[in-house]
Amino acid sequence: MNGHSTLALHEDRLFPPDALQRAIARRLYAQVANLPIVSPHGHTDPGWFAGNAPFANATELLLVPDHYVFRMLYSQGVALDALGIPRSDGTRAAVEPHAAWRLFAENFHLFRGTPSSLWLNHVFHDIFGLRVRLEAGSADHYYDRITGALQTPQFRPRALFERFNIEVIATTESPLDPLQQHAAIRDSGWSGRVITAYRPDPVVDPEHEQFPEALQRFGEITGEDVHTWPGYLRAHRRRRAFFASMGATSTDHGHPSAATADLSEAQARALFDKVVRGVATAADAELFRAQVLTEMAAMSLDDGLVMQLHPGCFRNHNLGLFERYGRDKGADIPLRTEYVHALKPLLDRFGNEPGFKLILFTLDESAYSRELAPLAGHYPSLFLGPAWWFHDAPEGMWRFREQTLASGGFYNTVGFNDDTRAFLSIPARHDVARRVDCAFLAKLVAEHRLDEDEATEVAMDLAYRLPKRAYKL
Amino acid sequence: MNGHSTLALHEDRLFPPDALQRAIARRLYAQVANLPIVSPHGHTDPGWFAGNAPFANATELLLVPDHYVFRMLYSQGVALDALGIPRSDGTRAAVEPHAAWRLFAENFHLFRGTPSSLWLNHVFHDIFGLRVRLEAGSADHYYDRITGALQTPQFRPRALFERFNIEVIATTESPLDPLQQHAAIRDSGWSGRVITAYRPDPVVDPEHEQFPEALQRFGEITGEDVHTWPGYLRAHRRRRAFFASMGATSTDHGHPSAATADLSEAQARALFDKVVRGVATAADAELFRAQVLTEMAAMSLDDGLVMQLHPGCFRNHNLGLFERYGRDKGADIPLRTEYVHALKPLLDRFGNEPGFKLILFTLDESAYSRELAPLAGHYPSLFLGPAWWFHDAPEGMWRFREQTLASGGFYNTVGFNDDTRAFLSIPARHDVARRVDCAFLAKLVAEHRLDEDEATEVAMDLAYRLPKRAYKL
Amino acid sequence: MNGHSTLALHEDRLFPPDALQRAIARRLYAQVANLPIVSPHGHTDPGWFAGNAPFANATELLLVPDHYVFRMLYSQGVALDALGIPRSDGTRAAVEPHAAWRLFAENFHLFRGTPSSLWLNHVFHDIFGLRVRLEAGSADHYYDRITGALQTPQFRPRALFERFNIEVIATTESPLDPLQQHAAIRDSGWSGRVITAYRPDPVVDPEHEQFPEALQRFGEITGEDVHTWPGYLRAHRRRRAFFASMGATSTDHGHPSAATADLSEAQARALFDKVVRGVATAADAELFRAQVLTEMAAMSLDDGLVMQLHPGCFRNHNLGLFERYGRDKGADIPLRTEYVHALKPLLDRFGNEPGFKLILFTLDESAYSRELAPLAGHYPSLFLGPAWWFHDAPEGMWRFREQTLASGGFYNTVGFNDDTRAFLSIPARHDVARRVDCAFLAKLVAEHRLDEDEATEVAMDLAYRLPKRAYKL
Repeated sequence: MNGHSTLALHEDRLFPPDALQRAIARRLYAQVANLPIVSPHGHTDPGWFAGNAPFANATELLLVPDHYVFRMLYSQGVALDALGIPRSDGTRAAVEPHAAWRLFAENFHLFRGTPSSLWLNHVFHDIFGLRVRLEAGSADHYYDRITGALQTPQFRPRALFERFNIEVIATTESPLDPLQQHAAIRDSGWSGRVITAYRPDPVVDPEHEQFPEALQRFGEITGEDVHTWPGYLRAHRRRRAFFASMGATSTDHGHPSAATADLSEAQARALFDKVVRGVATAADAELFRAQVLTEMAAMSLDDGLVMQLHPGCFRNHNLGLFERYGRDKGADIPLRTEYVHALKPLLDRFGNEPGFKLILFTLDESAYSRELAPLAGHYPSLFLGPAWWFHDAPEGMWRFREQTLASGGFYNTVGFNDDTRAFLSIPARHDVARRVDCAFLAKLVAEHRLDEDEATEVAMDLAYRLPKRAYKL
Repeated sequence: MNGHSTLALHEDRLFPPDALQRAIARRLYAQVANLPIVSPHGHTDPGWFAGNAPFANATELLLVPDHYVFRMLYSQGVALDALGIPRSDGTRAAVEPHAAWRLFAENFHLFRGTPSSLWLNHVFHDIFGLRVRLEAGSADHYYDRITGALQTPQFRPRALFERFNIEVIATTESPLDPLQQHAAIRDSGWSGRVITAYRPDPVVDPEHEQFPEALQRFGEITGEDVHTWPGYLRAHRRRRAFFASMGATSTDHGHPSAATADLSEAQARALFDKVVRGVATAADAELFRAQVLTEMAAMSLDDGLVMQLHPGCFRNHNLGLFERYGRDKGADIPLRTEYVHALKPLLDRFGNEPGFKLILFTLDESAYSRELAPLAGHYPSLFLGPAWWFHDAPEGMWRFREQTLASGGFYNTVGFNDDTRAFLSIPARHDVARRVDCAFLAKLVAEHRLDEDEATEVAMDLAYRLPKRAYKL
Repeated sequence: MNGHSTLALHEDRLFPPDALQRAIARRLYAQVANLPIVSPHGHTDPGWFAGNAPFANATELLLVPDHYVFRMLYSQGVALDALGIPRSDGTRAAVEPHAAWRLFAENFHLFRGTPSSLWLNHVFHDIFGLRVRLEAGSADHYYDRITGALQTPQFRPRALFERFNIEVIATTESPLDPLQQHAAIRDSGWSGRVITAYRPDPVVDPEHEQFPEALQRFGEITGEDVHTWPGYLRAHRRRRAFFASMGATSTDHGHPSAATADLSEAQARALFDKVVRGVATAADAELFRAQVLTEMAAMSLDDGLVMQLHPGCFRNHNLGLFERYGRDKGADIPLRTEYVHALKPLLDRFGNEPGFKLILFTLDESAYSRELAPLAGHYPSLFLGPAWWFHDAPEGMWRFREQTLASGGFYNTVGFNDDTRAFLSIPARHDVARRVDCAFLAKLVAEHRLDEDEATEVAMDLAYRLPKRAYKL
């Protein structure tokens, strides 16, 4: 590949340029670089680890499923059909994977400075051994190298899992999922720890277009009369217990807002009745989701599952794209999100319970210093999840630390989680987080706000101990 | 001027103090420092270039028209009358320009650290060759030097335009403007490229006190019956075509919010009827502005004019000042601004149109990472204008880049525009933007997130290519 | 104390690690490090200075009264009873102060990187001469050293006041306070200047559970018929005059929002009538507080007291904790806060008055660049208080400067105030503020945006001159 620009992963990447801080950051990072990966919140496909089949090719593995990548191409005029993105009707433009990859390569400059470029270059360099930059002229070289490697045993999912030094990874499943893949993993005798997490949104959100069918199926799978409020709650309890038996230690809730409610039994029944009858207004739906969150907290107190709340996203904002290509096509847009009033009903009931843990995420960074750090720095049950989704980038991580430290400290946060379905990027993502935390700590040490031995302990806590503690792993 | 403090413009100003980053920043800046100025959005007076008459004196040129300057003096107790600021009744306190300038000089310390001081010192040093600081003791020296220079041929508007290496500058005019000055420039044979932009706010905002008269005049000037909805729309189309024929490549919309609407024809007619009859409520007015934005987008699809939206300012907040001195006296205050719901009606219609471009600005920085970068990083029609107005400062530019990079990248932004009526400050403003972008890029390079050749390309794109592409120049 | 980690206060702490900036910061700091402390807004107990009795022990002085410290312990599961925090019924768990201190020491790592650790380590090191870190093994050493010192004459309140080089300190009292402690200080012949500030919230907030009794007492103490609107206003005027006679130069208002109102006399009477009869709704209460703020501004114009407004906190958010332990237990959480519309009624009346000063604080940092700096950079009556409460930390101070500088400059801010009841931490807090301001200024100098002589002047203004000017001290 002569004549091409070199691709390098500098050993000091993401460290402060200042020599003093860089030296400290290096020493801190040396202590955490090789710690096992704890990935308590993610969206990989358990079927990969159950079946251990090879991934198909570069395009199908790295481009087509990753809406964080193709959203950027789309934003600059690349048609989704030109990339072979599947449509919601099941069809797909007849595009050669090679051709789609070339289009990606030609536009790779769009990712300059973004976290996608950090992750992708890490994958290219460390996993596939590529040493030239991705660009028009190297597109075929990339495609062939990656696709070829994927056919070898070392690139099967389990081999990569082991190579990545993953101690435990959680996937996320709907209550309707029979968890057969997890059972298959367990029964296979393979030592990799792949657990599930309980994500009940499909049976919690009355505004989801498939809610009636999902609710119906929820009843069938649990044997409860889920069209009554008590039966509905029993079904959740039953399903949570099953998920826990398959390794789950947490639940996950992706709501439009952080609203919680604490209705009386009679109010809740009446509300549920409207939901079941399909006559819930938007406000009813919001209240129902809010009430279910509080019910979930009550169940967590009993079954010990850690609760996660990810509010504040307008899903499928692009109407035309949604109609043609369906969900999860890069058109989810964050919303301003309020926590102080929203969480009070739930916290009034469970905020001081020693056995309860609620991990909060946000897409509204203005809440870090104003609402989230003060809440987490007070309530024993509250912890802050890391900089999430659009903010899972060096700048976003840095703002998270800078804006939560004063009121929340380090120990009301839960370390890093990758939140990704892009399996190959997991080491890169944890590496970025570890580097940024070490860089941040190095600044504190260089400013004499922390001694280096303390910073080392914090770095190890953030990279490894806090996620294990927070998620009971 | 012995005994006075020296005024210097350090060649490394605004670069990171760290030696490694500074060296990179210098190299990047060397590539962009002398690129021509592209100024696609501004408020200079085309009459300056048409008539090419000399500017009057230091006070009339640099102090009286610049409400960013006199607002700061006013905030510390300097009366507007003491500066000779014209009142809304056309009168003006009898103040010697010399005396007003002295008052300015005595209070110049108030600007320490502000962008005004960066721009003014650049103008003083580079354009007028001043080498002592502006302060009480140097006030007369300044006044005389500047006023004297302004009488010479080299300080006439066209000479400065050429000296500033301006490739193209856009002014902003109301649809009611006959564009005679632009015609005079065109007919003069002078080679300077001064174009207009279509700013229809006076005939779009029913809450403007002169709306009825403006609408009347809009009908006269276009020959359309603008008191009917179809006639009103036809008048816009006609006027936009005329503006385009005079060089305009964009429209500009300064609204209180980012609201857009997509009413049916019947709803729009009914709404317009209320507006015309002067019975529109505040909510009607908001909805009308919202609907017109969507209509403007539809027209942009046809005539190719790039659309700019600058929402989120409470104009003329200071009641007493407004009554006495009128508009634009430094009392405009930014408001919290929502984009995700607000823009959806317009984006649902035109967001995926290849031929449509909407450039968004904000005064609410909390929207950068939460709303604007995710929107621009998805919709092909959306681009982000630079850090604007109150945020057009080194810190504001830095926050813009830091908070839009992860989701929007560099290529969904449109480079810099100066948005100013302070003609002499234009080179200073572009220089600050170029320096800050180079400093930001130098950090990425020093942290090994970008190679220097890539950073060089980005720097040139931001300074020159992206504004030309975004504004079709 | 062999075997323990060393506690050091590095002379360069909080300065930028970069050698160039650090050198500048050192020089700037050398000019301000020993300036007297001006503390115009705080919550120390005037009884300390009146009685000059020794403080009891380490736990009672440093842990039990400081809800910023015990909130962090509580957030990680330490029960308030285990620390001996008094309950609202007057009882208190039987906990040895020694034991509570040990619990604090064991958990001191929770404070890593927080401002509490900066302040506490400063107190430990500089005031008590401790040279090992606080941790489990040094808990008793700490307790004994601190408690022992407190019994000596040099650690009595007045001796510490003098040692701290406090030029003037303001406490905060309710209108119902007879100011006997202040009278005792004045009559004692001691030269320390301890003044009061007028904080009328208990008789202004109809939602305070003790409002009816407070209003009753307000009438008794002033001899006015405070159940009529004119009498109520007269009572304020009378009480403000008394406070001014006891040294007060300011009033202080802690409201849930920044709302102000400008009702007609008839409207205000009708509203007050509802308040007095106990039938005010939440909206009435909000409007009443809003109206009283405007009345207070009117009185400030007459009596010259500087007005302070601290809005935007949800007090006592934790219901269970409030019921058991009462107010001020670390469960106050900031709220999103709007200023532009909220302040307009008051500013329309008094915003341009030369004799009026309103100092604004915020817990919503998103308002700094968007609303507060533009307001303060225009209105002659408005000034910005420093980064407050949850934001009184190096990162918070830095964000305050970075986000207010462009529109507000340095001179529309009022320098630092400590806002604390933790008397011993006052030197540490002012030292942190001075260091951070010098670090910020050093960056501007290193980037050639300010000359060092200008930065020195600004540093001295921020540390000493501006608070004196703003608070008329």
